[in-house]
Amino acid sequence: MFEARLAEGGILKKVLDAIKELLNEASFDCSEAGLQLQAMDNSHVSLVSLNLRAEGFENYRCDRNMSMGMNLASLVKIMKCSANDDVLTIKAQDNADVVTFVFESKNGDRVSDFDMKLMNLDQEHLGIPETDYACVIKMPSNEFAKIVRDLSQFGESIAIACSKQGVKFSSTGDIGTGNIKLAQNSSADSDDKVVVDLQEPVTLTFASRYLNSFAKAAGLSEKVTLSMSPDVPLVVEFKVATSDNDYGYIRYYLAPKIEDEDS
Amino acid sequence: MFEARLAEGGILKKVLDAIKELLNEASFDCSEAGLQLQAMDNSHVSLVSLNLRAEGFENYRCDRNMSMGMNLASLVKIMKCSANDDVLTIKAQDNADVVTFVFESKNGDRVSDFDMKLMNLDQEHLGIPETDYACVIKMPSNEFAKIVRDLSQFGESIAIACSKQGVKFSSTGDIGTGNIKLAQNSSADSDDKVVVDLQEPVTLTFASRYLNSFAKAAGLSEKVTLSMSPDVPLVVEFKVATSDNDYGYIRYYLAPKIEDEDS
Amino acid sequence: MFEARLAEGGILKKVLDAIKELLNEASFDCSEAGLQLQAMDNSHVSLVSLNLRAEGFENYRCDRNMSMGMNLASLVKIMKCSANDDVLTIKAQDNADVVTFVFESKNGDRVSDFDMKLMNLDQEHLGIPETDYACVIKMPSNEFAKIVRDLSQFGESIAIACSKQGVKFSSTGDIGTGNIKLAQNSSADSDDKVVVDLQEPVTLTFASRYLNSFAKAAGLSEKVTLSMSPDVPLVVEFKVATSDNDYGYIRYYLAPKIEDEDS
Repeated sequence: MFEARLAEGGILKKVLDAIKELLNEASFDCSEAGLQLQAMDNSHVSLVSLNLRAEGFENYRCDRNMSMGMNLASLVKIMKCSANDDVLTIKAQDNADVVTFVFESKNGDRVSDFDMKLMNLDQEHLGIPETDYACVIKMPSNEFAKIVRDLSQFGESIAIACSKQGVKFSSTGDIGTGNIKLAQNSSADSDDKVVVDLQEPVTLTFASRYLNSFAKAAGLSEKVTLSMSPDVPLVVEFKVATSDNDYGYIRYYLAPKIEDEDS
Repeated sequence: MFEARLAEGGILKKVLDAIKELLNEASFDCSEAGLQLQAMDNSHVSLVSLNLRAEGFENYRCDRNMSMGMNLASLVKIMKCSANDDVLTIKAQDNADVVTFVFESKNGDRVSDFDMKLMNLDQEHLGIPETDYACVIKMPSNEFAKIVRDLSQFGESIAIACSKQGVKFSSTGDIGTGNIKLAQNSSADSDDKVVVDLQEPVTLTFASRYLNSFAKAAGLSEKVTLSMSPDVPLVVEFKVATSDNDYGYIRYYLAPKIEDEDS
Repeated sequence: MFEARLAEGGILKKVLDAIKELLNEASFDCSEAGLQLQAMDNSHVSLVSLNLRAEGFENYRCDRNMSMGMNLASLVKIMKCSANDDVLTIKAQDNADVVTFVFESKNGDRVSDFDMKLMNLDQEHLGIPETDYACVIKMPSNEFAKIVRDLSQFGESIAIACSKQGVKFSSTGDIGTGNIKLAQNSSADSDDKVVVDLQEPVTLTFASRYLNSFAKAAGLSEKVTLSMSPDVPLVVEFKVATSDNDYGYIRYYLAPKIEDEDS
């Protein structure tokens, strides 16, 4: 049997916002350690990796490992039926073909349950090697989201250049060229801080639309971390966290565009 | 001559929101007692009954009974031209083919008048028998609106089951099944209170889309009353009221689905 | 070389909102006196005249007169990349085919630059004769915007009648007729004041859609001035101003409809 109780059910809404543009369906893998999801996006270009630790849940029980294939559009509809501060319990029998979501309002006067049919999804887990990155940028997630949204208007690619001074995002297209430079500002208010941990300067170019999809996770966390090294995929990481609780993370992997690698 | 002066003109906007999805056009029947409207919706499935008592108006004069047929889309456009706190006067000569709406701003510096052509609408009044219902549910109108909107995502029908414990709304469709249970909570804050007056438990099933249209009246009143008995139409009633004034009510009637009657 | 520094970059966003519906592209004429734009709208019915004085800019340098043809949709995209309180610098070399927009955040931690290709636009300047108008109406710009938007629902034309008592806006169409009368109220709170400076009463009729487009400038200024005389174009003027600074103005010219001139 699987049963997981989330005191802040709204977290799952935000997780869905972070993946529903990239994935039509996905397998949630349940184990003693927690809930995990790993999948290539619909066009098989980027990789999404979600990890929600068992410790983040108010109660967590998983008798045997199981994989629950879900249609994310259906899951979005179910989550819409909840209030953000509802307590959410996810339940499934072993080998079940149905998962149940139970929402309880804070005062207990409203209790809703939704049964959703599970799907059989083929999946293969990719081993993601631990890498030591040439530069790691930590910045406000809203600013990241605005920058990639703004530059997406200019071109299909966005170059990210990281140096001691800070980070530069650039894009070129029919209209012209845009550059947005963020200074490293360790002295600033911690919320606005941009911090660069640099081994060597790196410039890589990525497809704008995937960066834009990743930025949908900005609701999960005030900070985003971008890790880059030449010739390896960019990692965009958001913590899944509230002021009370650290649930885990969501990470996106995206290979750089080869033609623009040395730009 | 007909002349009715409404200190809170915005009320008529909310009344329109409550009927414009169901009715393209409607006859407003004016008598000494007040303004009334009774009509089957465009698909002739549900019945709308609106009653605005003469006493709710600041001034009300109706020399002889008359019926004013109006295109509701046109009336919506006229109401858009007013501010919510304008004083509204509705005027028509006996046997006129035009009705005039006059809006006055609170300070009197803006006065607008709109003449709208009247329509000849056939109409027959249905006698609605007074019924003693097996159960009467009183609940917050916003909660009712959210529940029927949420469950409409699941299926074309919503079952409403009423018992001593409270009310359960259910719907089933391709995604799965959803149930939303509200406990009777007489002890709660009166605004959130769900109260059930029960002679016998009843479960009836209704078309989601009509419940959804009825819920558009939630702006008129904080409370909605659902009255149900086996084999007779559901009545959904909203008071038309402000903190200062009781104008009357709007009631919707909808027959239960026969195939699901015993579910 | 041309270089102009605007402490409140958001002003240019509002200027764009005021012209982008009327103009697809436009020439900004730079001289020592400031930035000017004069153009017939896309359908060659109305005339737009924008004047931003050199004194309104924090720094302003224009070595020789030049005309910069810009695609306004592209310029809108660039302006979207800025925050409203960014400092904006516009730069171009003499005879350049590119203009550069530099946005600096208040704290200096974000600096963005955008190069946009310039266009060659034919243009001829119309001499606009100074006229002494029979009536000049000064009124809140938001109220003007709401009135023309509301009356546009009724008919393609809006008549503006100005007399000692105040102003009346009227429109007639299939639904019926609407009149909105504003009293001259010099005693009112200055923000809501409608003031009419009258030599003789005037009634003129204009195409609703152009008045509606002009009203998009309401974000620039709390007041709008309408100047009318029989048989000459209406002038609709908005100051381009903030609490700190007077930048200049935008004026729209629209000829009255001849068939309705004496209505």
